[in-house]
Amino acid sequence: MERVLALLKSRGVSKTDIIECVYFLQRPYHETLTNDKIIYYVDSVLNKREVQHAIYTGIALDVAVEKQVLDNKELEAIIARDDGLYGVDEVLAYGICNLYGSIALTNFGYIDKMKPGIIGKLNRADHAIACHTFLDDIVGAIAAAAASKLAHDKE
Amino acid sequence: MERVLALLKSRGVSKTDIIECVYFLQRPYHETLTNDKIIYYVDSVLNKREVQHAIYTGIALDVAVEKQVLDNKELEAIIARDDGLYGVDEVLAYGICNLYGSIALTNFGYIDKMKPGIIGKLNRADHAIACHTFLDDIVGAIAAAAASKLAHDKE
Amino acid sequence: MERVLALLKSRGVSKTDIIECVYFLQRPYHETLTNDKIIYYVDSVLNKREVQHAIYTGIALDVAVEKQVLDNKELEAIIARDDGLYGVDEVLAYGICNLYGSIALTNFGYIDKMKPGIIGKLNRADHAIACHTFLDDIVGAIAAAAASKLAHDKE
Amino acid sequence: MERVLALLKSRGVSKTDIIECVYFLQRPYHETLTNDKIIYYVDSVLNKREVQHAIYTGIALDVAVEKQVLDNKELEAIIARDDGLYGVDEVLAYGICNLYGSIALTNFGYIDKMKPGIIGKLNRADHAIACHTFLDDIVGAIAAAAASKLAHDKE
Repeated sequence: MERVLALLKSRGVSKTDIIECVYFLQRPYHETLTNDKIIYYVDSVLNKREVQHAIYTGIALDVAVEKQVLDNKELEAIIARDDGLYGVDEVLAYGICNLYGSIALTNFGYIDKMKPGIIGKLNRADHAIACHTFLDDIVGAIAAAAASKLAHDKE
Repeated sequence: MERVLALLKSRGVSKTDIIECVYFLQRPYHETLTNDKIIYYVDSVLNKREVQHAIYTGIALDVAVEKQVLDNKELEAIIARDDGLYGVDEVLAYGICNLYGSIALTNFGYIDKMKPGIIGKLNRADHAIACHTFLDDIVGAIAAAAASKLAHDKE
Repeated sequence: MERVLALLKSRGVSKTDIIECVYFLQRPYHETLTNDKIIYYVDSVLNKREVQHAIYTGIALDVAVEKQVLDNKELEAIIARDDGLYGVDEVLAYGICNLYGSIALTNFGYIDKMKPGIIGKLNRADHAIACHTFLDDIVGAIAAAAASKLAHDKE
Repeated sequence: MERVLALLKSRGVSKTDIIECVYFLQRPYHETLTNDKIIYYVDSVLNKREVQHAIYTGIALDVAVEKQVLDNKELEAIIARDDGLYGVDEVLAYGICNLYGSIALTNFGYIDKMKPGIIGKLNRADHAIACHTFLDDIVGAIAAAAASKLAHDKE
């Protein structure tokens, strides 16, 4: 998990950023909710192989677009401007959420519209400098998945 | 489509109710958005065979729970109280959304949390009298699907 | 898990039947594969809440169709004859598979066409007597999910 | 559609190759099934924006791996050897299949195991020279989607 955390960090996302997103999603349903409790669920999600593969692949695409090394320049432009109808970024995010059930998918849809904390920050980043088209959805999916697991364990 | 509309009507959902949900989702992205334009997309979703099958099945389960005709009384109780961790109602809803792409899924997650108009009304109905556990998600999915198709056609 | 196993048994599906389906899927990839090893994965899948909810719901629909207690008689007829274009039975099955990643979905598509062991038996049952429209897909999904988990753990 | 067909062609996949895969899936269900009829459905799938985005993205990843331009060398190695547990290639393929309903997903699982025609050929290509990790799943998904649409229209 250290590798995936280091990679996220290098792209501007700390574990605390993700914890804040989980907190945003779960606070309404818990009287007491501590960071320590949330960490367990975030770690659990980040430890899953298929989640790691989605993170690596999404970030690899973001970086490739920044470095302009993709052959397909039209695709590069679509990803660079985070075109709302591109859709593959969400497909990758759903690949993460699906592993955590229908609550994770609902959480993702909500957080993707509300864009709290780091998600909003990534989304507002200057597209001429940085590409976070995949990363913002991936962070949303990790938080949505951790929140879903937390909700299931509560009962 | 008349049959499916009549069934929805008998369960308290009019086409206008669905149009209002689509309007809630799409208004931020359109300067001028008329009911007449939205109707086309709602009709298109309601005409799809797999959508109709999901609507029929979800409502059949709601009605069976109201009439208490299911063999499995524990399941009946779970559905009757719209248990947040039940999840099969969302699975059926995603069966609709998936047909309209990743934007439809995101829209669904958002509308399912915000519960505008008819969705909130169904959700607040007295569980001792009426069961709308599947129906509120299905209406959300139809609206999310129509909004996604509208967004794709806009460009 | 005892309740879900008893319910499956009452509908003609034993744990051994499911194990045989997992064996069918995984044999090509393992030199030595014992029933004892497979049991662990089948149990793990059957213990998951969302899986249990899907099993309960699918079987409740099959039984309701057999008893002819659904309000919607056209839907009842569609489910009774296991109409190939109905699709909601597969949607429920995918609700199980999605929890176990993309390999589970691929496994499901394959086993659903090949119909080994109990799946073929359920599928060939006299539709005038028994309805297994949901159950055969659910058994396929449980086996596909267990096989996927087994494959992931192997490495 | 011409652009997407030219790209597929440049990677070794002709429209005839895809038609043969659809034929493989649908022949058992049709007494007379001509290439002319299948073309209509393949074109329809290839014309869909979200399908095109998935094709462009998958092939861009395959090409980037061949050219070794990805930052993440471990990910590059995983994709280069078409690791069976990678899973993101199937996630992208499901992004296509989901748009065509549950029959498309089942078709995909089956064709992905049977690997008829071009799919087997791509799969057996020398990994040291060419990377088709995403492409073989994408071709399977296009064929599965076209076959599903054909099946729905038949009735």
